[in-house]
Amino acid sequence: MASNTIGQVIRCKDIKLIRTDTTLDLSQKAEKAAVAWEAGKPLVIEEVEVAPPQAMEVRLKILFTSLCHTDVYFWEAKGQTPLFPRIFGHEAGGIVESVGEGVTDLKPGDHVLPVFTGECKECRHCKSEESNMCDLLRINTDRGVMLNDGKSRFSINGQPIYHFVGTSTFSEYTVVHVGCVAKINPAAPLDKICVLSCGISTGLGATLNVAKPGKGSTVAIFGLGAVGLAVSVFPSLLCITLLFQFVLPLNLKPPVTILHSQAAEGARIAGASRIIGVDLNSKRFNEAKKFGVTEFVNPKDHDKPVQEVLSKMTDGGVDRSVECTGSINAMIAAYECVHDGWGVAVLVGVPNKDDAFKTHPVNVLNERTLKGTFFGNYKPRSDLPLVVEKYMNKELELEKFITHEVPFSEINKAFEYMLRGDSLRCVIRMDA
Amino acid sequence: MASNTIGQVIRCKDIKLIRTDTTLDLSQKAEKAAVAWEAGKPLVIEEVEVAPPQAMEVRLKILFTSLCHTDVYFWEAKGQTPLFPRIFGHEAGGIVESVGEGVTDLKPGDHVLPVFTGECKECRHCKSEESNMCDLLRINTDRGVMLNDGKSRFSINGQPIYHFVGTSTFSEYTVVHVGCVAKINPAAPLDKICVLSCGISTGLGATLNVAKPGKGSTVAIFGLGAVGLAVSVFPSLLCITLLFQFVLPLNLKPPVTILHSQAAEGARIAGASRIIGVDLNSKRFNEAKKFGVTEFVNPKDHDKPVQEVLSKMTDGGVDRSVECTGSINAMIAAYECVHDGWGVAVLVGVPNKDDAFKTHPVNVLNERTLKGTFFGNYKPRSDLPLVVEKYMNKELELEKFITHEVPFSEINKAFEYMLRGDSLRCVIRMDA
Repeated sequence: MASNTIGQVIRCKDIKLIRTDTTLDLSQKAEKAAVAWEAGKPLVIEEVEVAPPQAMEVRLKILFTSLCHTDVYFWEAKGQTPLFPRIFGHEAGGIVESVGEGVTDLKPGDHVLPVFTGECKECRHCKSEESNMCDLLRINTDRGVMLNDGKSRFSINGQPIYHFVGTSTFSEYTVVHVGCVAKINPAAPLDKICVLSCGISTGLGATLNVAKPGKGSTVAIFGLGAVGLAVSVFPSLLCITLLFQFVLPLNLKPPVTILHSQAAEGARIAGASRIIGVDLNSKRFNEAKKFGVTEFVNPKDHDKPVQEVLSKMTDGGVDRSVECTGSINAMIAAYECVHDGWGVAVLVGVPNKDDAFKTHPVNVLNERTLKGTFFGNYKPRSDLPLVVEKYMNKELELEKFITHEVPFSEINKAFEYMLRGDSLRCVIRMDA
Repeated sequence: MASNTIGQVIRCKDIKLIRTDTTLDLSQKAEKAAVAWEAGKPLVIEEVEVAPPQAMEVRLKILFTSLCHTDVYFWEAKGQTPLFPRIFGHEAGGIVESVGEGVTDLKPGDHVLPVFTGECKECRHCKSEESNMCDLLRINTDRGVMLNDGKSRFSINGQPIYHFVGTSTFSEYTVVHVGCVAKINPAAPLDKICVLSCGISTGLGATLNVAKPGKGSTVAIFGLGAVGLAVSVFPSLLCITLLFQFVLPLNLKPPVTILHSQAAEGARIAGASRIIGVDLNSKRFNEAKKFGVTEFVNPKDHDKPVQEVLSKMTDGGVDRSVECTGSINAMIAAYECVHDGWGVAVLVGVPNKDDAFKTHPVNVLNERTLKGTFFGNYKPRSDLPLVVEKYMNKELELEKFITHEVPFSEINKAFEYMLRGDSLRCVIRMDA
């Protein structure tokens, strides 16, 4: 399992042969890393030095990465403190190249998904069956360095390049804390399952792990797209629920959103018989059908609040609702539309910082439950391997989420697709 | 099992011998019913005719009843449409005297607890494992008549006397829908377990069934008394969570409240290691210790919000909180003081009608759960018999809740004790 690069600084451009002990040919075109030098400016493929992993770190060769709205959000840096130059990317699949001191449960050659949030397995959250919000490795978008020494592992001619959410997968090689790496079935196709390391799992888990609709139940999914949702920050909600830095909505052109489709996919897998999509843009309905949505409600078509419309359609309320827009009004409607006695509403969207969730307490007293979720309540290391198995045994469909593919050299196209609202997921092939 | 009163109008004053086929002597002083003629005026012991039970109804001989804040609240009628003359009372233990047509699972002689909310066993709520909010028999404080014919079973010289929440237990005999009657272990002492038919179960269930604290967990109980809680409607919260008619706070003198102690009792039974009482009156702490409260926080002693104080005391937040005040600020604090990742807040108190539960949605997104409860989520017929068994096998202590006892003829004293804040529960002996 030895690699000739272990313990050495990797110069991405120079590497031609990294490892020989795997069936994958890792040697091809290993010369690229995409650096964001400035907010909103196209990424530049650069030669980047990647330092060896330190204690409790692993260095990964990334084979496939995909673009998530969160990358775009922080790349645009319209609402938060900018941190540049930086290597974005956090949804990816790869192979362990080398491991640092103290790493015992990963070894070179392991197939892995890096994750933007971690699981140290030691803190109270990791030890609790109810939480996945690891104290040590919880997402931190402000930090551009590694925990161990407070420094970056990336540099160009000695200039540090900042990390992003501990993953920075828009690089052929990256260094990640071992707690942010899920070891997965090596038979799983990395070009498909890479999308599980962020977006898909978030929406899927929101339904499967948190809302938990029963067989035959009725589920409302709020937000089939960002179109028309006046205060939507939908593009940013995939993995930044813990930012504590809520900002103004993006001025992105409305992207085709992905979270609702994951949520609907979760409802489909759970066996819900009615999956009601709610959106201000009726055009979304046709697309949403692919993801299991069976009925559609456009609040604009009604002269009463959508929660009342849903309540009437479902004889008192839906069994479960999943709110994917980030609009505070949609959040409140999602809560108030669930049935008294047993209804559960799950909020996934990230609201504006000045928003307040406001409802009459009688809605609570009537035995409605309100829950939030972060990364679909999955513990990255413990649970992601099992989600991969769901794909492997055909319970979960991933292909329909992957609408585009580009070579790494054309990574900026992935940004364009997303900004134009053309893509659900665009997979970036590092070897192409 | 035949009774010489079956099928007959019972004139409470005239009855000397009701039944002879039970070891209890039901014949003693069977001449009383307490009628509230006007709001806030002392009840008057009257001769009342009690009609036979109609279809799906049962007529009960009440042996013990206790006074609950809800009785006082509707007797005062300061905030709701008054309905008089009326027979109050809804917390009681008794014996079935006769049953109406279609009643198959109760028979004369059965020991029972009448309950202010029901379980028809047919509706979606009753069929759901998650709800106890029966569609047919859910509490209705506006209705003063029986469902079957829209009429009262009580009359005095032909003048109907209204029912209260379907129970009207301040009468030696009462007629109740079969769905509002829990058949219990005949070996259980009715003078103790009568308090389970409302108040005790509400608080106990809020903790045991809804908050579900784990062994060794930390639980915060908001509201150790109504004192000082400026907008407290605490006296009214025991069983009116479904009134949909939220009113201004009572002007009662602060009663010694009972709900917190039930909630604490639930936490004690569940094995919580820290039970933190929160109240604006520090004097409540000593009394609360009896009910398992181990620590005390008075928000007035701190210059920062109590949720922050609790968070600091507990390294990030309590595992569970139960809010028993009805103050909207306490509700918000109870929610915001639970730990992210796994914290669950349960709201029991009934707020003012203009209150809004307002929190930053990030508190939800961080995997905190907000739940409400109604009658402790117990299904009256299915679950109350099991709560009685908890008392019988000494898991649950009831004696400490019963602070006073009066004969029926002195029922107005029970009101005085409560208005003075002297009593937790005052049991009224119907045969004395």
